[in-house]
Amino acid sequence: MALKKAGVLGATGSVGQRFILLLAEHPEFEIHALGASSRSAGKAYKDAVTWKQTSLLPEYAKNIVVEECKPEGNFADCDVVFSGLDADVAGDIEAAFVKAGKAVISNAKNYRRAPDVPLIVPIVNPEHLSVVEKKVADAKAAGKPAPGFVVCISNCSTAGLVAPLKPLVDAFGPIDALTATTLQAISGAGFSPGVSGIDVLDNIVPYISGEEDKMEWETRKILGGTNAEGTEFVPLPYDEMKVSAQCNRVAVSDGHTECISFRFAKQPAPSLEQVKDAMRNYQCTASKLGCPSAPKQTIHVLEESDRPQPRLDRDRDAGYGVSVGRVREDPVLDFKMVVLSHNTIIGAAGAGILIAEILKAKNVI
Amino acid sequence: MALKKAGVLGATGSVGQRFILLLAEHPEFEIHALGASSRSAGKAYKDAVTWKQTSLLPEYAKNIVVEECKPEGNFADCDVVFSGLDADVAGDIEAAFVKAGKAVISNAKNYRRAPDVPLIVPIVNPEHLSVVEKKVADAKAAGKPAPGFVVCISNCSTAGLVAPLKPLVDAFGPIDALTATTLQAISGAGFSPGVSGIDVLDNIVPYISGEEDKMEWETRKILGGTNAEGTEFVPLPYDEMKVSAQCNRVAVSDGHTECISFRFAKQPAPSLEQVKDAMRNYQCTASKLGCPSAPKQTIHVLEESDRPQPRLDRDRDAGYGVSVGRVREDPVLDFKMVVLSHNTIIGAAGAGILIAEILKAKNVI
Amino acid sequence: MALKKAGVLGATGSVGQRFILLLAEHPEFEIHALGASSRSAGKAYKDAVTWKQTSLLPEYAKNIVVEECKPEGNFADCDVVFSGLDADVAGDIEAAFVKAGKAVISNAKNYRRAPDVPLIVPIVNPEHLSVVEKKVADAKAAGKPAPGFVVCISNCSTAGLVAPLKPLVDAFGPIDALTATTLQAISGAGFSPGVSGIDVLDNIVPYISGEEDKMEWETRKILGGTNAEGTEFVPLPYDEMKVSAQCNRVAVSDGHTECISFRFAKQPAPSLEQVKDAMRNYQCTASKLGCPSAPKQTIHVLEESDRPQPRLDRDRDAGYGVSVGRVREDPVLDFKMVVLSHNTIIGAAGAGILIAEILKAKNVI
Amino acid sequence: MALKKAGVLGATGSVGQRFILLLAEHPEFEIHALGASSRSAGKAYKDAVTWKQTSLLPEYAKNIVVEECKPEGNFADCDVVFSGLDADVAGDIEAAFVKAGKAVISNAKNYRRAPDVPLIVPIVNPEHLSVVEKKVADAKAAGKPAPGFVVCISNCSTAGLVAPLKPLVDAFGPIDALTATTLQAISGAGFSPGVSGIDVLDNIVPYISGEEDKMEWETRKILGGTNAEGTEFVPLPYDEMKVSAQCNRVAVSDGHTECISFRFAKQPAPSLEQVKDAMRNYQCTASKLGCPSAPKQTIHVLEESDRPQPRLDRDRDAGYGVSVGRVREDPVLDFKMVVLSHNTIIGAAGAGILIAEILKAKNVI
Repeated sequence: MALKKAGVLGATGSVGQRFILLLAEHPEFEIHALGASSRSAGKAYKDAVTWKQTSLLPEYAKNIVVEECKPEGNFADCDVVFSGLDADVAGDIEAAFVKAGKAVISNAKNYRRAPDVPLIVPIVNPEHLSVVEKKVADAKAAGKPAPGFVVCISNCSTAGLVAPLKPLVDAFGPIDALTATTLQAISGAGFSPGVSGIDVLDNIVPYISGEEDKMEWETRKILGGTNAEGTEFVPLPYDEMKVSAQCNRVAVSDGHTECISFRFAKQPAPSLEQVKDAMRNYQCTASKLGCPSAPKQTIHVLEESDRPQPRLDRDRDAGYGVSVGRVREDPVLDFKMVVLSHNTIIGAAGAGILIAEILKAKNVI
Repeated sequence: MALKKAGVLGATGSVGQRFILLLAEHPEFEIHALGASSRSAGKAYKDAVTWKQTSLLPEYAKNIVVEECKPEGNFADCDVVFSGLDADVAGDIEAAFVKAGKAVISNAKNYRRAPDVPLIVPIVNPEHLSVVEKKVADAKAAGKPAPGFVVCISNCSTAGLVAPLKPLVDAFGPIDALTATTLQAISGAGFSPGVSGIDVLDNIVPYISGEEDKMEWETRKILGGTNAEGTEFVPLPYDEMKVSAQCNRVAVSDGHTECISFRFAKQPAPSLEQVKDAMRNYQCTASKLGCPSAPKQTIHVLEESDRPQPRLDRDRDAGYGVSVGRVREDPVLDFKMVVLSHNTIIGAAGAGILIAEILKAKNVI
Repeated sequence: MALKKAGVLGATGSVGQRFILLLAEHPEFEIHALGASSRSAGKAYKDAVTWKQTSLLPEYAKNIVVEECKPEGNFADCDVVFSGLDADVAGDIEAAFVKAGKAVISNAKNYRRAPDVPLIVPIVNPEHLSVVEKKVADAKAAGKPAPGFVVCISNCSTAGLVAPLKPLVDAFGPIDALTATTLQAISGAGFSPGVSGIDVLDNIVPYISGEEDKMEWETRKILGGTNAEGTEFVPLPYDEMKVSAQCNRVAVSDGHTECISFRFAKQPAPSLEQVKDAMRNYQCTASKLGCPSAPKQTIHVLEESDRPQPRLDRDRDAGYGVSVGRVREDPVLDFKMVVLSHNTIIGAAGAGILIAEILKAKNVI
Repeated sequence: MALKKAGVLGATGSVGQRFILLLAEHPEFEIHALGASSRSAGKAYKDAVTWKQTSLLPEYAKNIVVEECKPEGNFADCDVVFSGLDADVAGDIEAAFVKAGKAVISNAKNYRRAPDVPLIVPIVNPEHLSVVEKKVADAKAAGKPAPGFVVCISNCSTAGLVAPLKPLVDAFGPIDALTATTLQAISGAGFSPGVSGIDVLDNIVPYISGEEDKMEWETRKILGGTNAEGTEFVPLPYDEMKVSAQCNRVAVSDGHTECISFRFAKQPAPSLEQVKDAMRNYQCTASKLGCPSAPKQTIHVLEESDRPQPRLDRDRDAGYGVSVGRVREDPVLDFKMVVLSHNTIIGAAGAGILIAEILKAKNVI
């Protein structure tokens, strides 16, 4: 079967490099266009990039000539475009690609709060893709060309937070109070310069700009629904789901650890064993659809007293699985537990790949 | 004025070394006896210890001959005995010293929950020393020799938690719900072997044995009161003050960071500014008494968005001051903030020294 | 083709766990026996081990019943026995296995200096296995059962040092002066307790017990030859090859970095390009023999100014390849360069597996 | 006695902040002018700086109004000017200050190789200040105003290297071969952004731009002499002193560790004990002159097998003392040892302060 053509915007950056790694030998997509700033355009990718991954730069990508981030040239033929652009340029560039009819899957924050843009954690709320499915289906039905659209990848720390909550909400109803204290890895901040070494050596920075607000807001959109027409998203109201986040940067390369506690709206709350079982038995839609990157086990519920740990557990299911441990009753809310997710896989580029796989499985791209 | 004679039990261990450093050139106390295991007894201290502090072993201590941990020899003359013993031996040894009429200030956990033993964070609840003051006064009044007693230093993570809460409770009444997620330094675990390097390199361990229970229990004793007779402590009941702790070990040498949130029993809660002012204006009793180690500023309320940070802020007031930052309203409880305290100073040996200074100022020793 | 039966001694330790991981799904060997202390014997492996690897404990190994380390039970049927035993017990146990006719491949230091025991870095001096080949061949020729023998894996820091030197010595003759300053990872020290966290946090320990002597001695055996009969090894004399090592422990999980410089006995020395080419073109014997774990590229010669780096380069060829960078002329000796090798793969358990593959390819086991 | 007036150029940067800390409560100097970029000029220092030191911003400095880096305004009255400027602007600015008759002590590299500029490690070669002493004396004798001049602080890794060599050269004659492999702290690289966190977490970067060349060149100037007229410096020729450096960046905040080996020109070399004694007995000139920051013990020769260590030993003599350990014979050269020096004290700002103290003691400023 012919591979779908994929483009990558911001290809020389940290997120772009991850997209390129994840698309190497992908069974459904192949890189067709790489976009970066005008400084890099015209160069072979290997000469434009400062490659900083633990895997070598894939052979296939070395000599692709980098283009500017415009919906023309090789990008004109792309079936899907992954965006690893920085927020300061992502808004305009992604809008141009959408206008040109492209399916854009973006790691940037710019459109996450747009009412008609799905904000997706692919192992959590792929059903939110229905809003773009409908757009595409309506256009087809009207004999028009498929419209462009953006799907946003959630913030990395939001992804880890909502993953284990989804099966709980499905099984036991809404959560009305949620607290999360994060211990976040430095890889998400990129590397030019990213987090300064002196800030994380024998140290913690108890602040990440904008992060707490993102977690508190995005969680309510991802766990929320749509309007009656299915055209816009309606986040859960603040007073139905109170979310409080405290974010810290720590000396970990990959893998966000989050200490969370939560209370169910419906009381009495389920038992500890019911909570664990719901997470353990959860199979995400991507897995049911047979998407190649879908985790075999979506949520790993660990019973060892001192797990999950980032160095030991972040690579479960190639970073698409989420690990949960120390699930126990909480004296203040109902339950507390530790969640670990791979911030650059399920929390960033990897999520983009899995979203594309779902869209393909649903014939949207 | 003659210096009080001090002994140190467990003198070769991590806590014992700190006692020895803090007592070097102390204006009120001088080392008179050093106790360790029978393996070390009879050796000069410098030959018995593997010194692992950033300051050099003080000259004065080098040639003191280590004794066994028995209330005889040089210990017989001590006015106060600091215990840095491990829990597995502290129970019996400290009991023997109390029986011999000694004032013991212990970092071990063994007697923390004994109803008549004060559990003290010296910048928080020195008024709890009244229980031993009373014992000593009663004996004097009866013409008897001063009885021995133990005063326990709180767990290190408890110290940081209760320090900023004390002025709030004083000003605005009880806190009925409290959550704390800790990011704890490794120095508290000692060094033979202490925390393994592979556990904290590019990693977090989301578990410290017994720690969460200590924080949840000790907080209620320290913020609680005594019985009518003033002879025993009565911790706050679980349903009047709900405390939930989640403890993590991180790659920090010294300084425990705690992300906490809390709710006042009395509503409406005070304003954000009232909360900050109460902490800012708090002067601890030790400072009022003129104790030499008392912090000039008990609680430092930082306004920078990314502080406190362990490497930058742990040494405020030589480690006896506590830093608080990011004080803000909390969507789930009333307020949240970040607290930083020096785990081996105000959270361990340093607390012991300051307790002794208070006892001396009150003529108990 | 039937898989060879493999046993692992010291199966619950750090090196033992690595053997078990590397033997999972191995195309030539299967685990047949696991040995540990009497405390573990009789338990299922999953209950006996504290598994601390980044990959999950392989399913196949979970329920193997651990035995004592004696050449009986399941060990009696093993074709090869890998030893991850600590030095304090390895001597006697390995001797018993040899006496029982077993082929033992050991990571312990005990027999490394025995004149008739091959000390092998499999990508460097597999020709030294001739001494045991001969023993086995002689026994066969005499109609006797195959004798037991030990092959020793070199010290981890020695492996990285000699790997790039081998092609140079082959091409340009002996090296008569060699200096190496190491920056060594902590994984090699195991984890109970291994290197203490406080020793490597914001710190370096400029000393590893016995390590410098091992590097200085083992290098001369590995690069040396045998006596005329081919029955014993004859290390290069001290005055023909002067080796000076300075060893440091640093905050790196896996991967030893070594800054080395060296001088050729024969002058004028080769050119810089000749030196690089010799390393670049080197293909190790294991690769020529088609051993499954052999690196595709034995020595990676990097041209980027700031490489090799442990986090980015240690996993080349699954840890069996060695990376070299910054090759340049040295003002004091002839050349200097930076070498990076994976200490637990080519420097320990992985080397053992590759040695076994070579022995099998040569029909010795 | 009136304090000398000091200015600081580059006052908001990493080195500038250190100058300000070191000048707080200094017995001989007081801050009179602070200079930074035009972006900061006109602001109170506390508003212009992002303070990143472990000590609080000294009260005295908070409200000093920052000026541009021109030899006018408050700078016009300064007796000495410390420069923490970046190399890209230091050249022109420092030249302007010299032209205006100022005594400039610079941490920048720009003039280090100028023949008439002293390159000083104050505990090593203060006698090189004679070149500027002579300039000043000649002007005075001629009835002219004192001329401006620059004195350069050496590179941080050079300082650690030459400190223990000076007493050896004094006692046993020239060193003709010297190798040094460094493990350098990240603080020297500043913090905006400085070394990236991802580069030093579970990693080493075996390269620091320009560093090896600086060490190899500066060492020969510092240990060299002047021409017959005493007006220019004459570095040791390359063939009389061969120096080879290999520089690595590691996860240490402060303190450069260097593994060095060296050979004396004159053979037979001194004994190991003679070498240790020479270092142990060395008293630097600054100490003899009674300079307030001079170390009480210039070289600490440690006998413990695993010292010096950066976290434990970098603060000896407030960072002005250098620690040496593991002194032993070297199979390739004569001796090898480990040297630890505080890179931001004796290797940067602190050296500047001590140089100023020496100049004052000699009545040059």
